[in-house]
Amino acid sequence: MSTARPLRLGVYVFDGADEMDVVGPYTVLTRWAEAAHSRPDVVTFSDDGAGVRLAGGLLMVPDVAADAGGPLHVLVYPGGQGALLRMASSEHLAWLRDQRETVPLVVGVSAGALVLAAAGLLAGRPCTTHRDQAGLLAETEPSALVDTQAAFVDDGDVITSAGTAGALDAALRVVARLDSPEVAATTARSLDYAPGVPT
Amino acid sequence: MSTARPLRLGVYVFDGADEMDVVGPYTVLTRWAEAAHSRPDVVTFSDDGAGVRLAGGLLMVPDVAADAGGPLHVLVYPGGQGALLRMASSEHLAWLRDQRETVPLVVGVSAGALVLAAAGLLAGRPCTTHRDQAGLLAETEPSALVDTQAAFVDDGDVITSAGTAGALDAALRVVARLDSPEVAATTARSLDYAPGVPT
Repeated sequence: MSTARPLRLGVYVFDGADEMDVVGPYTVLTRWAEAAHSRPDVVTFSDDGAGVRLAGGLLMVPDVAADAGGPLHVLVYPGGQGALLRMASSEHLAWLRDQRETVPLVVGVSAGALVLAAAGLLAGRPCTTHRDQAGLLAETEPSALVDTQAAFVDDGDVITSAGTAGALDAALRVVARLDSPEVAATTARSLDYAPGVPT
Repeated sequence: MSTARPLRLGVYVFDGADEMDVVGPYTVLTRWAEAAHSRPDVVTFSDDGAGVRLAGGLLMVPDVAADAGGPLHVLVYPGGQGALLRMASSEHLAWLRDQRETVPLVVGVSAGALVLAAAGLLAGRPCTTHRDQAGLLAETEPSALVDTQAAFVDDGDVITSAGTAGALDAALRVVARLDSPEVAATTARSLDYAPGVPT
């Protein structure tokens, strides 16, 4: 991916987002960014910039609000019970569709893929999600081609993933695409993590 | 483990602790605790209860300060660059030795094992750490029996682990010991995570 401005990657956070879906990709991306020549900017953001209580109880303070800091190259949308609640908000789904028009790569992690589906972003696409939610994904977007085995599905401008391990693997795929498979492998080694699938 | 008071598990956090070493075990333990009949209490704590900036930049606010909330059954000590800095603080190492006297199970994750070693807690013990730091662990505690292949080493009252995946596997071992291997397997499945080794 070539760009005139520094790469900017955002991990969206909200009350009830799953800890691992947030922190797994965030850790992979920041570990890569620290070493990358292009010094990509990896930020966490919530709707209003205020702290959020993640699904297991962890309280975190994001870097910025959703409307701060300019456009993203990559948007990571985590799962968790909070993601399921967001599927019913037409205002939120409209925001997500707006994001989709400007962000080159959207990553729906675990139940985050369900929100992408609810926003109409997975129509006719191959995709995946948390194993326990494959049925709900197919109900939400009947035209989606739900892969119930993959750690992640890379469909070009949209990547979706399974849970914990799939989230790490999907983030490593993002590194492989933005940088190189070799750098993604180095990033995985620095985390003592062996991806389930080649990046 | 039988106890008259509810189980209390603490994840210690500090500036420069590794995100995955903190959040991986925290997520496993809280996911288990939510479903467990005994309703174990899983808390994060920092020295003074104030927020900490983790190694990759994530800002989190712990539940309590180190001296609040009563004794722990399990203490999780994460790695990260911040852990390496702590190895040089005699005051901190004395605190850790004090903890060791009252906490039945101490889990040193990744470079967290190095701090345990610096405090003298791994003398003569089998143990492991992040692959990149096995040499430093052996230097820090020459009598330690460093396993450079294991995801984690369960030495009874002390468990040490490798990085990202080892941290998850070690936390699942804690669940298996406090509850049962079957419940640990259920916890892993709920996270869409397949442990590298049986718990």
